[in-house]
Amino acid sequence: MADLFVSNVRPPGGPETNLLVRDGRIVASGNLPAEPGIPHLLGEGRILLPGLVDSHTHLDKSLLGLPWYRNEVGPRLIDKIENERSVRRTLPIDPRQQSERHARLAASHGVTHIRSHVDVDTEVGVAGIEGVLATRSELAGIIGIDLVAFPQSGLLIRPGTLALLEEALRLGAETVGGLDPCAIDRDPKGHLDAVFGLAERFGRGVDIHLHEPGEMGAFSMELIIERTRALGMRGRVVISHAFCLGMPDQAVVDPLIAALADAGVAICTTGSPSRPVPAVKRLMDAGVTVCAGNDGIRDTWSPYGNADMLERAMLIGLRNNLRCDDELQLALATCTTEGARTLGLQGYGTDTGCFADFILVAAETIAEAVAQRPNDRLVVRRGRLIAKGGSGLS
Amino acid sequence: MADLFVSNVRPPGGPETNLLVRDGRIVASGNLPAEPGIPHLLGEGRILLPGLVDSHTHLDKSLLGLPWYRNEVGPRLIDKIENERSVRRTLPIDPRQQSERHARLAASHGVTHIRSHVDVDTEVGVAGIEGVLATRSELAGIIGIDLVAFPQSGLLIRPGTLALLEEALRLGAETVGGLDPCAIDRDPKGHLDAVFGLAERFGRGVDIHLHEPGEMGAFSMELIIERTRALGMRGRVVISHAFCLGMPDQAVVDPLIAALADAGVAICTTGSPSRPVPAVKRLMDAGVTVCAGNDGIRDTWSPYGNADMLERAMLIGLRNNLRCDDELQLALATCTTEGARTLGLQGYGTDTGCFADFILVAAETIAEAVAQRPNDRLVVRRGRLIAKGGSGLS
Repeated sequence: MADLFVSNVRPPGGPETNLLVRDGRIVASGNLPAEPGIPHLLGEGRILLPGLVDSHTHLDKSLLGLPWYRNEVGPRLIDKIENERSVRRTLPIDPRQQSERHARLAASHGVTHIRSHVDVDTEVGVAGIEGVLATRSELAGIIGIDLVAFPQSGLLIRPGTLALLEEALRLGAETVGGLDPCAIDRDPKGHLDAVFGLAERFGRGVDIHLHEPGEMGAFSMELIIERTRALGMRGRVVISHAFCLGMPDQAVVDPLIAALADAGVAICTTGSPSRPVPAVKRLMDAGVTVCAGNDGIRDTWSPYGNADMLERAMLIGLRNNLRCDDELQLALATCTTEGARTLGLQGYGTDTGCFADFILVAAETIAEAVAQRPNDRLVVRRGRLIAKGGSGLS
Repeated sequence: MADLFVSNVRPPGGPETNLLVRDGRIVASGNLPAEPGIPHLLGEGRILLPGLVDSHTHLDKSLLGLPWYRNEVGPRLIDKIENERSVRRTLPIDPRQQSERHARLAASHGVTHIRSHVDVDTEVGVAGIEGVLATRSELAGIIGIDLVAFPQSGLLIRPGTLALLEEALRLGAETVGGLDPCAIDRDPKGHLDAVFGLAERFGRGVDIHLHEPGEMGAFSMELIIERTRALGMRGRVVISHAFCLGMPDQAVVDPLIAALADAGVAICTTGSPSRPVPAVKRLMDAGVTVCAGNDGIRDTWSPYGNADMLERAMLIGLRNNLRCDDELQLALATCTTEGARTLGLQGYGTDTGCFADFILVAAETIAEAVAQRPNDRLVVRRGRLIAKGGSGLS
């Protein structure tokens, strides 16, 4: 928590202003005189955006900093899951080290908050959770990290996993994860009852990977919505990916979207260019919270990704054909305010009273910031300048 | 044309080597001693890739360097065409200046050859062609530019355009362009007979924007293939976008792909994430040449784009779900060798005898170069270092 005076920043749509930060929070803005005795950051007309929020990634298994991994993995989801479990035995993927590399890279781009799914299974147990928790402590000054205890290899099909998820929650993971109740666990009722049962007992939220396409995914989504309603979990349930919402049959999609809005279930998207995806603008127009994530970065699943959520906003904009300036603001919102709402972040934003977690981007407008992703950025976390031009400061 | 000694570069898959360039061409490679008296470029283990080829862009109408353009354009193709013609009257879009800005930016990323469609219509006449031709002369040392005389606003529906296309060819444009024979010109036979007629008379190639989806696009594509065969134009016809090949009905797509391969018609893709697109790997497996382009960069159509064809390779990889290392080589090929073949570039490549048009990228593998698009690049054109780390040298 630091003090900082920031001059000549441009809140989107407004005139240049100065900000005063005390003890990590914005306490004043406007035509303020420079404050002697505290650091002075020159905004130089850069646009002021709240910290980027990555609502869905996997900090425990990036290969960042390791030799290039030659990907020869098969096309199915299960191929990727099994390959990863196998490769993990031989590659030096230390969750503690890899999560720090990944989180530092994200922070250097202006990501101030991450929700990370972390694998929990009967082979690694909770070692991934412990590693990411250690990184969370280590990096508390530069980035906030929430953990989802994630049964990547399945829950009911791998007995013992449920007890490990429980252990993960006791250790400090915030949220209960789940995965394809039909396609992977082969027992949608059993899977979701276990996931929501754990969430109810511990008073936690739920975040479920739902890759299931078409009618199968729609069915699982209905089961999730039913449980959200039954347990009064409005605002505490996220469905990640939700590819089924990208199916062509609008007679199925329309009522699903209405039910998500009504039950207060959020959707998290990566804007995948190769899969059917939820239509961001349409969901938002219907009142559904839509946040975004980079998903895995350079891991055994995929060689892509650089942990930059401004680039993710661009990819979501491209995928959803968002070209007008007002539409690009929606793309950015998935990577900022909508993520903050989903993660329940307190004191998020650039108003007086908010934590001083923001980025200053050399762009004329939000649309330019999203479409062009300028590397010229200053990243401030809790009043401290932590990165400049895509490089973290030591 | 310059002399250059390049040390410690890595041809993909091979050991580090040195290159000797004389008069703009690679004349030797291997364990060569440094040549005194000529510039020495340190490869420092960077990977050696041939120059990037942008086979489809619009140099005449980028807004690069101008104040941010607020996009409020309607969703249809015709909205964008009409908006552009209207906006062009008030915005200072000088084709000469804008094409230089755009081409310099492309060159700074390692693009050594561009095919640019250039608007020809009854309002601007051939002013766009003249502007881009002037830039071509000005920048001959850093980048090669081919021009397509492009009837963006329609051909038959705007009488007088055909004569202007002919004038554009006389001025120096290489290729005859066309556009959506059904959807825009409303007369597929008339449009294509005019386009191919001009090509035949002048002995030029053809490159047609085909946005038409589904069955309509398939019909236009058949007409293009028929004319390619009838005129013996194998290897000289490109269909850009070809969204119809992304339609779900494989009973229509399969024979179209076979006919493209048989007739020697190439496809140019941007890997658009929001439209149905041709499946790159499938087309290549069938023997169709598939090149790639960035399309418009930050123009009145779209705020996206940075003119980097390595980023385009990534976007094509993402869109086509290319994740394995061997697949990412295909994504790169669309932006290198396949583009060179489409444009008929002589002396392209990194073998001895080829022009010294290449980039040195700080990546371990081609897959890393594509997926991570490192900014650390050295760009050499005709033996001269012209850009470094994404910035052009003066």
